[in-house]
Amino acid sequence: MKHSALCYMARRALIGGRNSNRQSSAVVRSFAAAEIGQRHLYADGGNGGFFYWKRMMSSQAAPSKPSAEETEAKSTEKNEKKEESSGTKNNVVVSSYWGISRPKIMREDGTEWPWNCFMPWETYQSNVSIDLNKHHVPKNFLDKVAYRTVKLLRIPTDVFFKRRYGCRAMMLETVAAVPGMVGGMLLHLKSLRKFQHSGGWVKALLEEAENERMHLMTMVELVKPKWYERFLVLAVQGVFFNAFFVLYILSPKVAHRVVGYLEEEAIHSYTEYLKDIDSGAIENVPAPAIAIDYWRLPKDAKLKDVITVIRADEAHHRDVNHFASDIHFHGKELRDAPAPLGYH
Amino acid sequence: MKHSALCYMARRALIGGRNSNRQSSAVVRSFAAAEIGQRHLYADGGNGGFFYWKRMMSSQAAPSKPSAEETEAKSTEKNEKKEESSGTKNNVVVSSYWGISRPKIMREDGTEWPWNCFMPWETYQSNVSIDLNKHHVPKNFLDKVAYRTVKLLRIPTDVFFKRRYGCRAMMLETVAAVPGMVGGMLLHLKSLRKFQHSGGWVKALLEEAENERMHLMTMVELVKPKWYERFLVLAVQGVFFNAFFVLYILSPKVAHRVVGYLEEEAIHSYTEYLKDIDSGAIENVPAPAIAIDYWRLPKDAKLKDVITVIRADEAHHRDVNHFASDIHFHGKELRDAPAPLGYH
Repeated sequence: MKHSALCYMARRALIGGRNSNRQSSAVVRSFAAAEIGQRHLYADGGNGGFFYWKRMMSSQAAPSKPSAEETEAKSTEKNEKKEESSGTKNNVVVSSYWGISRPKIMREDGTEWPWNCFMPWETYQSNVSIDLNKHHVPKNFLDKVAYRTVKLLRIPTDVFFKRRYGCRAMMLETVAAVPGMVGGMLLHLKSLRKFQHSGGWVKALLEEAENERMHLMTMVELVKPKWYERFLVLAVQGVFFNAFFVLYILSPKVAHRVVGYLEEEAIHSYTEYLKDIDSGAIENVPAPAIAIDYWRLPKDAKLKDVITVIRADEAHHRDVNHFASDIHFHGKELRDAPAPLGYH
Repeated sequence: MKHSALCYMARRALIGGRNSNRQSSAVVRSFAAAEIGQRHLYADGGNGGFFYWKRMMSSQAAPSKPSAEETEAKSTEKNEKKEESSGTKNNVVVSSYWGISRPKIMREDGTEWPWNCFMPWETYQSNVSIDLNKHHVPKNFLDKVAYRTVKLLRIPTDVFFKRRYGCRAMMLETVAAVPGMVGGMLLHLKSLRKFQHSGGWVKALLEEAENERMHLMTMVELVKPKWYERFLVLAVQGVFFNAFFVLYILSPKVAHRVVGYLEEEAIHSYTEYLKDIDSGAIENVPAPAIAIDYWRLPKDAKLKDVITVIRADEAHHRDVNHFASDIHFHGKELRDAPAPLGYH
């Protein structure tokens, strides 16, 4: 319940900011204030919205039709301010020329929300009770090709990483975040070309890509990549992005099946990772702050908790991609079935 | 306030669904129920979540480690069901093999949420008081190149469409939704390659692309594309996507500036559109249902209201892109300034 309130009030703060210049903004704000009073939560979040609102009002005070000179002068002046304040927390000034600002968002404990890469309403509690052993048995030739390909790809990674699961997870997440983006982009372009709705699948696949990227941001807090690993990622991304791009154009059915099997392998790897944590081979260090906020973990969460929720995420992606492949298998388009949005 | 409650309860329904298999789901649901009672809103939305929860529980009842045969059998059986029920509203069955389902989401008036391409918490009330005349005066050579390029691009479109603004808007939105996707994708890949946070800019640019695509989905309800227009979109997308892709790799600064100027032209075109509606040259027909839900317009909204909020959206995109270009102009990366998420 606390989390839902957090999610809600954070969103309220932003919506308050959004609507700030509208007649109804007073209503919106007083409603938000009432909510704050009622919940004894997010008072500062409300204020954050309020500061934002005031800032927006003042930027509203600017002449509505500035002449070219005025605009240029204002732009230069503000841009100088941007220079000064860049890197500081005073982001309101950074962007005030264009009247853009990120509202000040607070945690329940009154501390400021420290992340720009994700917002409180994008956080969630992972459903860790998901069946980790569910496996799609290859039913036809293409399924078998997809399955064998993934099994083949596993060999070099096993050889390269051995049991360095931290490093392995970090490196593989740089690849895992690619298919969702490729699929989402291609469906987006298709939706535009055909003047058709996407059934929510564009967003669902982009959500997957974003989630995998959050895994990477978490792993990077635990393992620092070496120079040759950075170089490897560069090369692998170049090859994999293009390969998957072509594959998705040729056969989305096979592409989603491949991702489904890749996720099955990921679940296996994370299970091995957890074994090494239990055996003490890998130290069960405290969870990074970003993971505690993103998955709403307890303050004293450990590495083991983080790997457990990441593994649950991979299981959800496995389901989504096998499901997507099944839809194609039955000669339908993804948009024929509503996308599993927010399926974590 | 009603909208925020709508946004909140719809989200609760989904979160209820999400957490359905967790011990705490009972708590979550009772909280949602309490909310429903308290607000006299979204009762059905709550039930939707509840049905979803029950469905998930029943899919949980499946053997946790099915043998290959069991899996195959179950898959086939369910896939048959998928065949039967496809095209019907019973999507729970469609996807129940993978335990995936979209929760039943209700509007405030108790009718079912009809859209899969966007969810209630992605809807917003546009800030139509945004300054429509704000213009970035070209400050350097590259600015001037960007400005001239956009002005040149305007000529053929003026010649082709003349004052057929409905058709013009529909066609141009198929292009307008490309830059956000290209920028978002490239920033996503960069974030992966460099093991760096994106500062929220990946999401901000993808939000822009999604918003432009919603403009298209709205315009298509008003103007049906002809076969040669569909062909034109195909050709234009092929050229523009690749051109913008290369431009963004060469200079994100110029790329965002170009989009900023494109949006300034879009504002001009929509203003002309509104003039023709006022003069009666274009009939002020009732707003499409999708637009009423997406922008939270009154039930009796007209075409004029829709064009007004779309124009306000373009003005927001103008600000975001000029702001992004300014950040690069000052030798910084986008991630140095927090992204204007949810800036509508």
